[in-house]
Formats: sequence, C-alpha cells, structure tokens
Amino acid sequence: MTPFSRRIGVLGAGQLGRMLAMAGYPLGHKFGFYGLNHDEPAALLGQMHTPDAQSADDTASLDDLVAFADVITFESENTSVELVKQISQTTQVYPSATSLYYAQDRGREKALFNQLAIPCAPYALVNSLAELDTAVTTIGLPAVLKTTTEGYDGKGQFVIKQPEQIHQAWLSIGERPAILEGFVHFKRELSIIAVRNAHNEHVYYPLVENQHRDGILRLTLAPAQAIAPQIQAQAEGYMQALLDKMDHVGVLTLELFETEAGLVANEMAPRVHNSGHWTMEGAQTSQFENHIRAISGLPLGATAPRQAFAAMINIIGEHGDIASALKLPNVHVHLYDKAERPGRKLGHINVLADSQDALNHTLEQLQGWLN
Amino acid sequence: MTPFSRRIGVLGAGQLGRMLAMAGYPLGHKFGFYGLNHDEPAALLGQMHTPDAQSADDTASLDDLVAFADVITFESENTSVELVKQISQTTQVYPSATSLYYAQDRGREKALFNQLAIPCAPYALVNSLAELDTAVTTIGLPAVLKTTTEGYDGKGQFVIKQPEQIHQAWLSIGERPAILEGFVHFKRELSIIAVRNAHNEHVYYPLVENQHRDGILRLTLAPAQAIAPQIQAQAEGYMQALLDKMDHVGVLTLELFETEAGLVANEMAPRVHNSGHWTMEGAQTSQFENHIRAISGLPLGATAPRQAFAAMINIIGEHGDIASALKLPNVHVHLYDKAERPGRKLGHINVLADSQDALNHTLEQLQGWLN
Repeated sequence: MTPFSRRIGVLGAGQLGRMLAMAGYPLGHKFGFYGLNHDEPAALLGQMHTPDAQSADDTASLDDLVAFADVITFESENTSVELVKQISQTTQVYPSATSLYYAQDRGREKALFNQLAIPCAPYALVNSLAELDTAVTTIGLPAVLKTTTEGYDGKGQFVIKQPEQIHQAWLSIGERPAILEGFVHFKRELSIIAVRNAHNEHVYYPLVENQHRDGILRLTLAPAQAIAPQIQAQAEGYMQALLDKMDHVGVLTLELFETEAGLVANEMAPRVHNSGHWTMEGAQTSQFENHIRAISGLPLGATAPRQAFAAMINIIGEHGDIASALKLPNVHVHLYDKAERPGRKLGHINVLADSQDALNHTLEQLQGWLN
Repeated sequence: MTPFSRRIGVLGAGQLGRMLAMAGYPLGHKFGFYGLNHDEPAALLGQMHTPDAQSADDTASLDDLVAFADVITFESENTSVELVKQISQTTQVYPSATSLYYAQDRGREKALFNQLAIPCAPYALVNSLAELDTAVTTIGLPAVLKTTTEGYDGKGQFVIKQPEQIHQAWLSIGERPAILEGFVHFKRELSIIAVRNAHNEHVYYPLVENQHRDGILRLTLAPAQAIAPQIQAQAEGYMQALLDKMDHVGVLTLELFETEAGLVANEMAPRVHNSGHWTMEGAQTSQFENHIRAISGLPLGATAPRQAFAAMINIIGEHGDIASALKLPNVHVHLYDKAERPGRKLGHINVLADSQDALNHTLEQLQGWLN
C-alpha cells in the first residue's frame, strides 16, 4: 500500500520466518512461506504454501510462493543453491545464491576467510579415512572433524583428541565429505551480526558472547563485556569484507572465537541468527527488521543497544514455568508454537538491564532455563 | 503448545486486531479474525473468517470463528451486546457484555461515572429537537451534542455555540438519540490505560497527553509531563472503580480533560486504544501484550516507560516519506497495510528519547506528519 510495500516470500516456515514476518508487517509488507506443513511456527503468519505429501516431485506449491512474491528470502543456509539460482531468473532472491554458495560449505567458507585475510583455524578437506589420517598428521590433535555441509547445533561434528578416535570420528559423521579443523583454544565464543542493503549501506551490531552446551546455544550476553573498541572494529572489518565480496544483501552472522592471539573466525550464516534474538527488544532496530529493511530496499535502522545490558536465554526441550518469567519486569518471552522435544528450540527469553548486577539478578531468577 | 496457549478469536480485523495478534503470537497463542474481507489489516495474521457477501444473514463464518476460539475479544465498542451475550453461552468473551453495555452508550457511561463519583461534564439525554431545546436551557452554551452510540474520531458530534445553531446541530447528527454535554474548558486532553485480568490483578500506564485535530488523534506525548503524583493516583482510582464495577477483563481506556478544577472524565473505550500505541516500544509491556495476557489468564506485565520521553504520531490520510522516518534512530514505524484515503489512520510513528530536547528535535524532523 506504499511504494515500498513488498510481498516477501520465505523459503522455510520455522521460528526465523515467524519472527521475520512479525518484524516486516509493521513496515507494510505481506508474507508468504514455503514450509512442510500447517503446524510450522510461521504457518498462521502469512500465506502458507506446502508441498503435496503424496507427490515427491511436487513443485506447484513452490511455484505458488514465487508467483506471490516480489522478493524471496530463506531461513536456512542449507537451502539449495541450484533452487535459488532457478528462482532468481524470475524473482529477486536476497541474500543471493553467491552468499549461499560460500556459507553452506565449510570448505568454500574457509577458503573465503583465507582469501580475505580473516583469521581462522588451520583446516584440511577430507573425503576418505586415508585423507583424514593424513590431515590429522598435518594439523595435529586435538582437532574437530565436521561435515562440510548441513551441520548445525553441534550435529555432524566430532572432536578428535587421540589418534585412536580417528576411525570412530569418521564413522560418527557418516563417512561424508568433511573438514578437519585445528582445535581453537578460546576464551569466549563471540558473534557479530551485520546488515547490508542493495544501496551498499552497512550496519553492525555489537559483538555478543555466546554460551553453548552440547553444541546448542543456551545464553547470549549482549553486548559482550570487556571488548576493546579495536576488537569491535576488527570484527566489523571482517564483516565488511565478507558482505562486499559476496555482494550480500540482508543479515550476515559471523561466529568467532576470542583467543589470546585475537579473533578467529569460526563460521558464518547468511541469515538472522539465534545470537541476534536479543535485538528484538534490546536494540533500536531488531535483526529481523533490519533484514526485512535490507531485502526490501529500505534504509537500515540503528543498531545501538537500548539498554546497557541484555541477555537471551534459549528455551530448550521443555517450556518450563513461563508464567513465572512473565512476572518479571524487563523480561520478554518469545515462544515459537512448537511441541516439546528434547534439544528442540521452543522459544527464547530476552532480559534487559541497566547494570550488570540487575542483569545477574534477573538471570538468577531464570536459572531454570539455564540448568 | 503450552498449558496456557489459547486460540484467540477477534471480532474485527483492523489495525487493532493486527497489533493484538503480533503481540500475542510470541506468547504462544494462535489468532483468528472475523472481518469484512481479505484486504483487512489483520487478514494475513491468522485464520480469516469473512461473511458471505451474497447472503445478508450469513452467520456460518462467525460460527467458524467461535468454533476455532478458546476465548474471544473485540476491536470495537460498537460490537453488538446481544451478539457477545450469545457467544458467551459457549465461549468466554473478554471484555464481557457488561463492559460493552456501558461503554457503547454515552448515556449509560455518564450514569456510571456519576454512580462511581468520577467527575464528568453535566449532561442531558435528548431524543427530539424539543428535548434538545430544553437541555440547552438547563446546561447552557457552549455545549456538545453527541449521538449516544457509534461516534468515533469526532464523527456524530456538533459543538453548539449559539442558540440559533440548535436546529442545525440536531440535523447534523442525524436526528438520533443523543446526549448534550456541557462544554469543558480544558488545559489538556489526557488518557489513561489500565488492564485487569480474571485473577483481579490491576496495572496502570502513566497518563498521556493527546492532541487532536478535526476530532482525530494526531499526537500522543507519553508520559504526559508535569502530572503530580496525586493526579496519576486519582486517575488510577477512577480506573480501578470502573474495572471492578464492570468486572472488566482486558485493557480499558479512559479519556480525560485536565481542567483548572482537576480531572474530568470524557469517555471510555473497553479496548486497546490509539493513545496507547506508544507502549509498543515505549513501555516495558505494550498495551497489546497486556490485553492478550489479561484475556488468556497470564500475569500482567510491567507498565513502566522504557525511556523518559515518548511520542506517537498518527499517519493520517497519506503515508508520506516513510523512508525518511526510517533513517532516524529511536523511531519506529507501524503501518497497517491500508490504502490512502483522507482522514484515514494508516499507521503511526513511535518516537523515544531520553530528554525533552531530544524528543522535540525528532518531532521537528517528523513535522510532515503533524502539519
């Protein structure tokens, strides 16, 4: 209804699509989704297109989404590059196939980091047990074996500490094309979220600290404390190089290790990211709104924190006593309308505070979700 | 998907329903709407039920919404009391028919204010030109003639300044049952929003200042400045009396005049209100989230402002240069996906600031929407 209103199609209908839509409607956009079924988190938040379960090669519902959309985006870096190239022939897709191409394959990603002089762990590509043996000799132990594609939340990874684990590691990841990375001894895990639009505007959120357990993000502290300005500037420099090299439009996330020797890149995601969920109430503009602004050609929004201290706690497996969390001031609950299942991300809780003490006090009251 | 997840049905599918849904999904609820057509602002944000345009007495689509819903709420005080009573026989409706009964008729509303010792203008009910003549003699001029029902945004009102305008006034409002109110000489127009849940929790937002033009709200300043604590307490006392008397569940809004003699009640609305839109980013919990919390049996959220100064500017008639507003930090745009039309509310812009100067500076940059 305005000159910039867009019909935005999302490949995927999970919680990221859900939160993108809720950030995009206030800008006057409309949303459609391509998802597996009508129980997905975003299903009620726009036109929902699902494949015919009876027909393995059904493309009509995807065609319907493309016909609906002025611009297409996606929830996952595991989206098919070929599919995105094909859609791009008729409809703009942001981020483009180029970003997907680099971000969905750890080998290409690492090569790009090296090309752009972004520090990362030493690595070797391995396609067989013999190659893995050789790689262990070159890189040394401990090292992390990861499938080159489709790993997430710690899946498809194996930390090799002793040579006798090599065979087990190879079996564990499914004897698939993989990458062996030298183990990085880090002080903290950090991430940074950046946004670029097609007019070549760039904005950066502050570095945040991420705490994982069993490979799953549990807690984000935003901003990360005790980050020297030159470290933030360095991270932004890496992001600018990546954004420009890939001609990226939308949100890009980079996970980093903070080490004695400085920042070391871990992996990137060409999308809104769990470590950016704190921005929903914590930043002047959320990562979701800025992604939508970027892909719809709008000016990017300010990324400054709204309060000095914020945290994001993932709700994993079980919802817990949500009503007790709702009683706390400065706490915001975001549920994804998903059924409980061990290890599943069901929602998150954002906490805002004006002091470290106040933040810690509220985090203590929310310990049930951190244990 | 949680014990408190509800299917919420909304009678109406305008911008209020749209914003209620966007506040309610993060709590794990699902939404359905009963609206006129699939172009309404909330149409894409849940199950949409519309009456068959070919059949004047179609009730099937409304029955479908009721069948979908665990709890029903409404967007407008002009919702039929009889309809709500009928739905209530099978499905909980919040607020109840009692709140609607009082709030949709200016005569009943004024009688309730008097019964609860809430100061309001002198008034007389008039059903004919002769009764209007008598009422003018009793109440004096200037006075305001208003239809007892269905007036909004200044429609159905006439300010009578001279006796020779009496006939014109009567024709102007359509010769319908009306109320003549003594004109209140006010310093400012204020409003207060309160929330009550079925567990008898009450919360109150701070008084805000509202500036109208041609009967339409243009600007809200939140909180209203220079409000003595006892004035806020007095307003909260009036609200508590109204909430308890009506056994109200949900948001209730009271518009007030600030006069030399203190607060004078103007009218109430049993719903989220335009003068509460600033709460979306401006308060710890928005009016929309608190309404949803109230009607779904959840604890109510904190109502404190997140920054010391906030404002809400309505976008009326034309969208204007939205991209320029999006460039400003501390500004949030909320569009309703409505076509431009003179006098129509198309969206609003929320502004946040830490000082009066900063607020004024941003308001100057947004003058285009205030002229």
